[in-house]
Amino acid sequence: MNKDTVFLIAGGDSRQLYAAKKLAKKYTVYIIGADKSDIDTGNAIKIDYLYEIPLQADCLILPLPVSGDGIFLNTPLSNKKIPLNSLNSIVADNGVITGGRFSGQLQEIFSESGAYITDYSMHEEFSILNAVPTAEAAVLIAMKNTDSVLYKSKILITGFGRISKALVKILKGFGAEITVAARKKEALCWAEIYGCNTIETSSLCRSADKYKYIFNTVPALILTKDFLSKVRPDVFIADLASKPGGVDFEYASSHNINTVHALSLPGKYFPETAGEIVAQTAENILMERSHHE
Amino acid sequence: MNKDTVFLIAGGDSRQLYAAKKLAKKYTVYIIGADKSDIDTGNAIKIDYLYEIPLQADCLILPLPVSGDGIFLNTPLSNKKIPLNSLNSIVADNGVITGGRFSGQLQEIFSESGAYITDYSMHEEFSILNAVPTAEAAVLIAMKNTDSVLYKSKILITGFGRISKALVKILKGFGAEITVAARKKEALCWAEIYGCNTIETSSLCRSADKYKYIFNTVPALILTKDFLSKVRPDVFIADLASKPGGVDFEYASSHNINTVHALSLPGKYFPETAGEIVAQTAENILMERSHHE
Amino acid sequence: MNKDTVFLIAGGDSRQLYAAKKLAKKYTVYIIGADKSDIDTGNAIKIDYLYEIPLQADCLILPLPVSGDGIFLNTPLSNKKIPLNSLNSIVADNGVITGGRFSGQLQEIFSESGAYITDYSMHEEFSILNAVPTAEAAVLIAMKNTDSVLYKSKILITGFGRISKALVKILKGFGAEITVAARKKEALCWAEIYGCNTIETSSLCRSADKYKYIFNTVPALILTKDFLSKVRPDVFIADLASKPGGVDFEYASSHNINTVHALSLPGKYFPETAGEIVAQTAENILMERSHHE
Amino acid sequence: MNKDTVFLIAGGDSRQLYAAKKLAKKYTVYIIGADKSDIDTGNAIKIDYLYEIPLQADCLILPLPVSGDGIFLNTPLSNKKIPLNSLNSIVADNGVITGGRFSGQLQEIFSESGAYITDYSMHEEFSILNAVPTAEAAVLIAMKNTDSVLYKSKILITGFGRISKALVKILKGFGAEITVAARKKEALCWAEIYGCNTIETSSLCRSADKYKYIFNTVPALILTKDFLSKVRPDVFIADLASKPGGVDFEYASSHNINTVHALSLPGKYFPETAGEIVAQTAENILMERSHHE
Repeated sequence: MNKDTVFLIAGGDSRQLYAAKKLAKKYTVYIIGADKSDIDTGNAIKIDYLYEIPLQADCLILPLPVSGDGIFLNTPLSNKKIPLNSLNSIVADNGVITGGRFSGQLQEIFSESGAYITDYSMHEEFSILNAVPTAEAAVLIAMKNTDSVLYKSKILITGFGRISKALVKILKGFGAEITVAARKKEALCWAEIYGCNTIETSSLCRSADKYKYIFNTVPALILTKDFLSKVRPDVFIADLASKPGGVDFEYASSHNINTVHALSLPGKYFPETAGEIVAQTAENILMERSHHE
Repeated sequence: MNKDTVFLIAGGDSRQLYAAKKLAKKYTVYIIGADKSDIDTGNAIKIDYLYEIPLQADCLILPLPVSGDGIFLNTPLSNKKIPLNSLNSIVADNGVITGGRFSGQLQEIFSESGAYITDYSMHEEFSILNAVPTAEAAVLIAMKNTDSVLYKSKILITGFGRISKALVKILKGFGAEITVAARKKEALCWAEIYGCNTIETSSLCRSADKYKYIFNTVPALILTKDFLSKVRPDVFIADLASKPGGVDFEYASSHNINTVHALSLPGKYFPETAGEIVAQTAENILMERSHHE
Repeated sequence: MNKDTVFLIAGGDSRQLYAAKKLAKKYTVYIIGADKSDIDTGNAIKIDYLYEIPLQADCLILPLPVSGDGIFLNTPLSNKKIPLNSLNSIVADNGVITGGRFSGQLQEIFSESGAYITDYSMHEEFSILNAVPTAEAAVLIAMKNTDSVLYKSKILITGFGRISKALVKILKGFGAEITVAARKKEALCWAEIYGCNTIETSSLCRSADKYKYIFNTVPALILTKDFLSKVRPDVFIADLASKPGGVDFEYASSHNINTVHALSLPGKYFPETAGEIVAQTAENILMERSHHE
Repeated sequence: MNKDTVFLIAGGDSRQLYAAKKLAKKYTVYIIGADKSDIDTGNAIKIDYLYEIPLQADCLILPLPVSGDGIFLNTPLSNKKIPLNSLNSIVADNGVITGGRFSGQLQEIFSESGAYITDYSMHEEFSILNAVPTAEAAVLIAMKNTDSVLYKSKILITGFGRISKALVKILKGFGAEITVAARKKEALCWAEIYGCNTIETSSLCRSADKYKYIFNTVPALILTKDFLSKVRPDVFIADLASKPGGVDFEYASSHNINTVHALSLPGKYFPETAGEIVAQTAENILMERSHHE
């Protein structure tokens, strides 16, 4: 693959432009539907109309989310209205169409293109790579929302999946004293090896009053009323789990507990990195497709 | 030392209140000149008039800076006007008066009190303890001012003193690729042992275009026009050295180089920690005095 | 569970005695078949005959391996001959019999005891806990077999499972420059997050001449003739994969390549830790059984 | 400096040969007085007689120690007897003669050569660089002398100089729980920043029974009878301080406390690294001399 390989980046926010910039270092890249941005996109070519692309695209990268209404492309950086189905003809028959949070219903619209259609946000690699910007953003949020340093602070992290592992690595560098809560013995063993204290999730309430910072990564109601009734008055809680999260937010807000439901962090805090991860995932999807053939 | 030991915390910003809160866990603490703040100060007793203190104070903690005009106490959290010399009588003859950036001229005003007078900000311990909040704040500033993560980023740190060492420890946790510039061979050896690349300060210009982040800690013009003319367009520079700093700011601003002169970071970003460091330093000054007698 | 819970530790080497010592801090523990050892076993009670135990045992811990001949217990620290089937009556009906590398055929012998029979070495927890002593021993072996330090040395680790992860953590502390070879993209992503360079296993030969140390953890012939023909003359290779390992040993020895097939490391180098892991695994097996009932 | 620069490596053990090998990558290097060794010395030229060198040497590297009797060179790897004063004529007038533990009396013998004479072991750089192999060897010794892992073990390090800092970095990677004992508040602050617990040296006895491993780096009797009377029965003590060390060895041996006085570690355990450090220090001495002129 090289300059003969053509990418079309359509719509979306600054992440799409950073994805374009990264891909344009190796491939031919066109951008449509982001005309209001002034981010430098390097060698990528901004176009106004699809007919400006002389060749069919090998890969069409749609934004995250792909569409707000199911008919037009999500284009926060453009006043243009681009119907989703107008993009079909631009992709080569053996090409790839990929987007983020790309529902089956939306994928249907592109089915007549003949291309391979996939949601990049469902790829394991995408999730691992996003663990790092998510963790960095969570640390940034924690620092901004409190009056004291992370050094030697007592931190609880619930769950020991991708984001927790990335968080532990960063927070150990700050010299924080971390406790990981998990259900499985194996997860607790690993958390210990990585230098954390551990606690079984079922015993969490007992130590609720120890922590200055709490990062929840478990998408289940773990930080219950009972737990929240025992936390330190100066606690800061960042819930990183997707909606509805793991915190009893009603209780937290009615008791003035400093709590943030922090979602979609990579795109919000580090759009350049988030875009590069989209680029890398799309590139790998395309490479794996071409190896198959 | 115990509850019989009396501290008076006078004036200043939230740091003074956090200092009071910490000391009040062990000692008897009075606060004057901070009546507009609503920070919880625990067991510390807020007073309006000096005569409310039943005993003389063993230690008077003045703010940083002590005074704006050389006559009245610096009291940003109060409308009261407290003449500096009115504080003399409240301190015991063998007591301690300490403040931050406490010039000889100001110290003169307190000389008739008979107390031991010292600038806590000149104590080595105070400087080491502040290296950590300074470094954490520098990292926070860098994260807020860029679109990409610290992970795997290329970072230059100039100098290898207290702040640099604290920065290296944190940034290694982020997985950054750090280069330390220093003049002395010994400093470069240690930077290598702590996992950094190294470069002699005199050769700095050669590699100017490598770094995404630059943290300067050297109070001398190191990041010259020549250096700045070669940096990456997306560089972010945080100058942590006291005024006038180490960056040619005129050149940087006229060339749209993303630069921040970041000063007095602990107090601005982590006032609770900054206050606790004042408390700890003052406590140690007092303890060392009583051991002497 | 407490002092009413009875363990019987039968046969084996010093690991069994260290397991006994650890369990005896909380439970009633008897030891049989290790009379020649002088390791201090704390509160554990050494017996010569099974009838000295006043109660049936809740848990019988057999050694690793359980038996050499399938008839008598493996007792390197005793001249006694203890028939495996003589141990049946000593275990309570709802008790647990566990041993290491405990084949189905051997388990058969104990089937009439009514106890729950399980091979502790097959428990995930046992494997994770042993990753640490295995990795420490591998580091010890590497240090003993070369004339130079690990600091700044170039190290290849093949595979990114339990032992590799434990190795990476330790070797990063030494300031080594580690490359991880793996097949799966996910494993390579994680190795990068933990600060390693990465290479796909299929491309390994290309960089064979870079490494001073090579630790293999993959139980497949990865370090082939082709690879070995390109290594540095001063390379040291430790093969940690179970027999037949991942190195072409014939080629290696005929070409004087410094290679060690390092097996059963925890028991050989850190028998105390190895024994404590047996104790912890057995204790957890017993606890989970009693929760079930 | 380049191939025109001539080094003569005379006498000594394998460190000298590894120094020769390293220098021979850049310079012209001759070796004399090490004919019994079979270590590969790369491009370095082994000679039997001084007259085989066609030019005068710019730098003569003598071994550590330089001589046993003050008359002949220390040549453990040769049966030759080389009088120290026979080496004078081979060094250029503006050259450098350097050796390890090079007493004033010995230096006198070389004074008529006209060369600059210096003891490389007194250079700060040499000491810092040797901290790493010393620390690695200390860790190796600790692992070899005990039955349990360093992971999660409780370790005391006395002093917080070069070797202690290098030790802390390595042992943190093992996941050990380190306490640093020092006298100065500044040293204790830094030890905390680097993730250690701290204790004032004067209070050491109180916690004597906590540690499994003790590394002493202080050249003063710190581990007294009183302290040793309270240690754990399974403690391992490595005294890294130069003679007479910091341990009451008489008491320790009469009470069967597992203690090693571990001296000259780099040369014993990592002669290649030790030799490379000699090479680097000598090279820097020579470079600084030529800059002066």
